[in-house]
Amino acid sequence: MIKTIEWKDDCVQIIDQNALPNELKIIRCEDYERLAKAIECMEIRGAPAIGVAAAMGIALAAKKCSSKDELQVSLEAAHNRLRSTRPTARNLFWALERMRRIWKDLLDETAENLKEKIINEALAIAEEDVSVCKAIGENGADLISDGDGILTHCNAGALACVEYGTALGVIRTAFKDGRKFIVYASETRPLLQGARLTAFELKHDGIPFRLITDNMAAYVMKKGLVKKVIVGADLITRQGYVVNKIGTYGLAVLAKHHDIPFYVAAPLSTIDLDRSPESVVIEERAPSEVTHVRGVRIAPDGTEVLNPAFDLTPGHLVSAIITEFGVTRPPYDLSVLFRNGGDRINRIVD
Amino acid sequence: MIKTIEWKDDCVQIIDQNALPNELKIIRCEDYERLAKAIECMEIRGAPAIGVAAAMGIALAAKKCSSKDELQVSLEAAHNRLRSTRPTARNLFWALERMRRIWKDLLDETAENLKEKIINEALAIAEEDVSVCKAIGENGADLISDGDGILTHCNAGALACVEYGTALGVIRTAFKDGRKFIVYASETRPLLQGARLTAFELKHDGIPFRLITDNMAAYVMKKGLVKKVIVGADLITRQGYVVNKIGTYGLAVLAKHHDIPFYVAAPLSTIDLDRSPESVVIEERAPSEVTHVRGVRIAPDGTEVLNPAFDLTPGHLVSAIITEFGVTRPPYDLSVLFRNGGDRINRIVD
Repeated sequence: MIKTIEWKDDCVQIIDQNALPNELKIIRCEDYERLAKAIECMEIRGAPAIGVAAAMGIALAAKKCSSKDELQVSLEAAHNRLRSTRPTARNLFWALERMRRIWKDLLDETAENLKEKIINEALAIAEEDVSVCKAIGENGADLISDGDGILTHCNAGALACVEYGTALGVIRTAFKDGRKFIVYASETRPLLQGARLTAFELKHDGIPFRLITDNMAAYVMKKGLVKKVIVGADLITRQGYVVNKIGTYGLAVLAKHHDIPFYVAAPLSTIDLDRSPESVVIEERAPSEVTHVRGVRIAPDGTEVLNPAFDLTPGHLVSAIITEFGVTRPPYDLSVLFRNGGDRINRIVD
Repeated sequence: MIKTIEWKDDCVQIIDQNALPNELKIIRCEDYERLAKAIECMEIRGAPAIGVAAAMGIALAAKKCSSKDELQVSLEAAHNRLRSTRPTARNLFWALERMRRIWKDLLDETAENLKEKIINEALAIAEEDVSVCKAIGENGADLISDGDGILTHCNAGALACVEYGTALGVIRTAFKDGRKFIVYASETRPLLQGARLTAFELKHDGIPFRLITDNMAAYVMKKGLVKKVIVGADLITRQGYVVNKIGTYGLAVLAKHHDIPFYVAAPLSTIDLDRSPESVVIEERAPSEVTHVRGVRIAPDGTEVLNPAFDLTPGHLVSAIITEFGVTRPPYDLSVLFRNGGDRINRIVD
């Protein structure tokens, strides 16, 4: 499968996620402004993928500069523009800060050296994303047992990352290991990332799945069809509060009620140790996403809506968080993951 | 507003609910087969409305007959055809049984008298539906307080009945009483009765509301925006198990978790004293309802789906059931409603 985002011929090539599943269309972004627009209108989405996109946006800005002065101005402008695209996903800010360290730490370098290092850092972020997803997959796969039904929400798959995915990375690894299970993909209104993207990926890989509407989750849990829930994350606080696609919190409450484990799979770059749950900014998106589906109006003209793109799941509803460093359980203090590089985290297998 | 279903010029006139909210289109049904098809494809839907439709279907069959023998054959055929249209809503079977009693009890009548009585019974069922909805509205209105946010699911409004509605009947009466509140209407995938029909009705009446996707329910509850949930029902068992539109059970679990009262508004014709929760038939509808929205494909070709049209909410999650006889609370034994005509039911006001 093509990578979701790739540096190619000095451009950034992305899969247009709005065109899926009808069409596999590639967009070439020649400057950071085009990439910023792609993040805003969700041609690229998924916390890890927009982190990589932001890093590559900085690299595109660097590529066009010929002097140190120009670099200084242009990189700050690109940084500010890319920061403003979406307010919630931690990985966007994490990647931008990591990129900024390069041009702040290497002020003595020549313009050419600095440009090279900036581009290399963006490529490193993209490469690490792949290995991190594979590690998340390895760490989480044993949580899935033969005969399971696994509910996943939105798309935390290859299309949310460079490739492979976080929640779907766990599912992919378990599938490669020969585990027999079925995935329930909730369609994820308003933008239908479950129906459009997760269904596309699972079908591509031949992983058995069924699509459900979001409001069928409690029904499939009650019927005993679902044994585990696995989702991705856009931001995780130190205490394991999980910000993820709208609907995630409701699934966590329903999972608790039905005594079903609720797992979150995400890289360390999603964790913000300094952010309190109260200070999380939940993005409100355009009303038309709710009043329309794929361009077709479904509600009367002038209907008022709410359209929060994310919600917040308290740590006590999260059975485990799967990162590239292992599986951690509540009560959460995720700062240990950073202090010890994961070696103090027990890898617990259900 | 036009009635959802009406006997007019020896035909049955219905509002085409599939055309809403884009178009207010009237369908004239000249025979019971057309009405049966209208029920199947949900041009008319909502438990009370399809009960009335079934009764009027029998009346259409009677109207065309000229002899007792013909009546006997034709009414049984119409009865069987209409019975087969949809398996879950109690009111359909209730209305058909009530109609059958006329032609079983009045075998000595002339064909003309029998026809007249059958048509009059269908008209009586339609008229009673209106007064019953008004009584439900009166009985439930005091459950709504100033400042409330009221979440409703699917459409239990005028369009689910002859007019006025059950859950929306309660909301209408509270609004007429001058209560200040806001309604949160969940869109209700797959067929979007919340977005298309409830939004249409609330907008028509000038009742303040916001449309949300189904997966936003937990978010609005957690934010404190919702103080009560009110839904309709397709079938209620003696012990207060409620069969209603898919997603209702999940809302009841979420309401419980957030300590929010969960109310069900329905006429006695929705109650089946003899039906156990285990024996309820949950209708599975066409996969295309999930893979498509208003004719537009949203999932890859060949995607498998689940599409249960209803779910079952246990009585212990239902804070009160509002009928034309008053407000009843758990633990439920709804047989008292039938034995005492409601006079033993305390009208409890929150």
